[in-house]
Amino acid sequence: MTTALLTDHYELTMVRAAMGSGTAFRRSVFELFPRRLPEGRRYGVVAGVGRMLEALEEFRFDEETVAWLLEKDVVNEQCAAWLRDYRFGGNMWGYPEGEIYFPGSPLLRVECSFAEACILETLLLSIYNHDSAIASAASRMTAMAEGRPCIEMGSRRTQEQSAVAAARAAYIAGFASSSNLEAGKRWGVPTGGTAAHSFTLLHDSEEEAFAAQLKAQGEGTTLLVDTYDIENAVRTGIKLTEGRLGAIRLDSGDLAIQAREVRDLLDGLGAEKTKVIVTSDLDEWQIAALRGAPVDGYGVGTSVVTGSGHPTCGFVYKLVARADSDDPRAELLPVAKKSTNKNTVGGRKFAMRRFDAKGRAEAEIVGIGTPPTGDANDRQLMVPLVENGTIIGREPIEKARERHEASRKELPKAALRVSKGEPAIPTIILDHEGDETYNPYLHSAVPTNI
Amino acid sequence: MTTALLTDHYELTMVRAAMGSGTAFRRSVFELFPRRLPEGRRYGVVAGVGRMLEALEEFRFDEETVAWLLEKDVVNEQCAAWLRDYRFGGNMWGYPEGEIYFPGSPLLRVECSFAEACILETLLLSIYNHDSAIASAASRMTAMAEGRPCIEMGSRRTQEQSAVAAARAAYIAGFASSSNLEAGKRWGVPTGGTAAHSFTLLHDSEEEAFAAQLKAQGEGTTLLVDTYDIENAVRTGIKLTEGRLGAIRLDSGDLAIQAREVRDLLDGLGAEKTKVIVTSDLDEWQIAALRGAPVDGYGVGTSVVTGSGHPTCGFVYKLVARADSDDPRAELLPVAKKSTNKNTVGGRKFAMRRFDAKGRAEAEIVGIGTPPTGDANDRQLMVPLVENGTIIGREPIEKARERHEASRKELPKAALRVSKGEPAIPTIILDHEGDETYNPYLHSAVPTNI
Repeated sequence: MTTALLTDHYELTMVRAAMGSGTAFRRSVFELFPRRLPEGRRYGVVAGVGRMLEALEEFRFDEETVAWLLEKDVVNEQCAAWLRDYRFGGNMWGYPEGEIYFPGSPLLRVECSFAEACILETLLLSIYNHDSAIASAASRMTAMAEGRPCIEMGSRRTQEQSAVAAARAAYIAGFASSSNLEAGKRWGVPTGGTAAHSFTLLHDSEEEAFAAQLKAQGEGTTLLVDTYDIENAVRTGIKLTEGRLGAIRLDSGDLAIQAREVRDLLDGLGAEKTKVIVTSDLDEWQIAALRGAPVDGYGVGTSVVTGSGHPTCGFVYKLVARADSDDPRAELLPVAKKSTNKNTVGGRKFAMRRFDAKGRAEAEIVGIGTPPTGDANDRQLMVPLVENGTIIGREPIEKARERHEASRKELPKAALRVSKGEPAIPTIILDHEGDETYNPYLHSAVPTNI
Repeated sequence: MTTALLTDHYELTMVRAAMGSGTAFRRSVFELFPRRLPEGRRYGVVAGVGRMLEALEEFRFDEETVAWLLEKDVVNEQCAAWLRDYRFGGNMWGYPEGEIYFPGSPLLRVECSFAEACILETLLLSIYNHDSAIASAASRMTAMAEGRPCIEMGSRRTQEQSAVAAARAAYIAGFASSSNLEAGKRWGVPTGGTAAHSFTLLHDSEEEAFAAQLKAQGEGTTLLVDTYDIENAVRTGIKLTEGRLGAIRLDSGDLAIQAREVRDLLDGLGAEKTKVIVTSDLDEWQIAALRGAPVDGYGVGTSVVTGSGHPTCGFVYKLVARADSDDPRAELLPVAKKSTNKNTVGGRKFAMRRFDAKGRAEAEIVGIGTPPTGDANDRQLMVPLVENGTIIGREPIEKARERHEASRKELPKAALRVSKGEPAIPTIILDHEGDETYNPYLHSAVPTNI
């Protein structure tokens, strides 16, 4: 299935007009970046890189698509001919998936002709803005869970394809598993699930329902115990398994109090190994609040798939440099608009994270025109993703997950506070001579729009 | 492409276990409904019905899918055999698309075997929860715009497939058009767009950029005037078109002040017919605040595609009645769980909107077990969507759009206030004898989770 029309109308009218004015094939540099973090967040998490590379490969204008664009006069014949042959032939560098980011981090740099880069804008932003919003929220949750497993189960609270992407992003950010089967099949995310209240209500008694579930899923299953009366349900589950029940799930009420009561009840019944899973309206604050409770796992729904209050990242994609002719040797000139409150820093960016001698992150260094230089402790953040149209940035999802865990561990401890705060490390922008220069991302008060 | 795995793992483990206990084919009634509206909202808008019917048709377990489910031990051979033949053969009734809803409105009723209905849960909820969240936010925006066109341009701020669904939902709720090309091709949503700042920056001067755009798109186009200096840009656009420019677009700064300044400038230059379009960070409150400004159209991005603070509706899907045997003649028994704060009303629901003599909506009447009776002013709200597996509820998107406009006009005037408030009309629940009964949706203080 082509991804070519997951695109704003104006990307194509711009290409059409630029072909008319002879500027469409000027060599250009576009960058995708955040102007800021959501209010109070201390760091963000890059996700969507792997999905973007897949979507890029499927970005093809087939004949049916081109015919529709011509019929609607979105493009003319000249533009249509170019679209039919479209294959991204440029270069992309970017932060690898799972990496942490801060305001102004140049997450993706696209170098090719204006036309080639322009028509990717909407698709790139859609994928990065969504997936990174989920991963950024999910990472706060797994940080608060302090090693106890978080289970993503929010598919029903987001669009059906977003659900698949959300499961993937949450897994990268440390979730243990997901309820979403398609994410399991497509991306290898571990999936799990046992039963809902409807399963208990379907049977003539709770005991019959539990017996049916145990028969099908074994004693290691998780029984949902709050359909009628929690204490009765727990006793039934323990009786049926002679104390060997895998886990019980609580999905309503005051979870801290109930988890304690259920833990005591289980222990009293000799079921010390039976785990307690909680699943009602959890978010990073609830998870933090349950640290003291005897809870063995968290099922998280709505809040993770909707980015816990921040369903999009507000990344933008801006032309930062371009040639003044079609000549491939023409010099790239930095460009930037000057609108109120939406300043962009012109010029091609590079990025490095600076670490202290103990390996603790100190600053995000963004270099304009030239990579920042550091010492052996520091890490260059941008890796090649696409080289002359060939995708070279693919990697297993597990690698992104490991990278995220490692990158989060390098942050100052304050980064993992659930309370609102400033970005965990400052972003420093260096001009082409390596001197610190004006940083608009520190001072922009107005939220970004398209 | 099959939609079968856009499903939670536990839907299939429940079917497997219910097959084992001989309960899987008990005749069942599931209902999809909101327990409440988002805080402060006065009404909601049903969207996703048409998308749901498409997804239902594509809900098939092909051999590759079944093989994966078997390999992962999600299902056993008995369950796999049933999945291979799965075709929804039941009945669905529901609110038609574009209709208004209130707390407790039975938006969709699914009647078939437990197994058949159970495995649709996640997909139905994903589609309704997402699309209705967008339509509900969009409707508030088009209400505030008071007839001036709203343009949906948020594709880049939501997942790439959500963007298509969002464009469709916003159109149903009165948006005039969308930037999303796929929504145009797939659903017939009118699309539009002209140019971004990058187009101006690509050219050697703003005048060259404007001339290129005018050449390609004609004088009726919309020029983006805030890349460098708004006044200069407006003068350039008017000079190049000798006053016949279609529109200018403002994308930054204080829009109310700038719209007034630009309007005065345009009028002073003799371009009285050139329109002013604004597009920066608009939501329903901003649109309301710009009522007094000389603005001819609103481009809305992030806020509409993320539901303006409420990216999901919190609809749930609950078993409300089921037979106590496989016998197709067995009586349906109402069922409901009794968890704290998550009460569900058992029994099959019907719904009617009650109107006064002037056609003004007065109440949402939900009948348990039997349709509420009304007079000629009143409207039964649930229509047949699927009959014995045959989809009969398809309709053109324009019909849903017209229905929404008509339905919103029937509401009490307070419904269209932008400020927070109570639901515009009360929901009244009648028992099977037609007497008013306990309504849990009026008193539930805790947000819903899965």
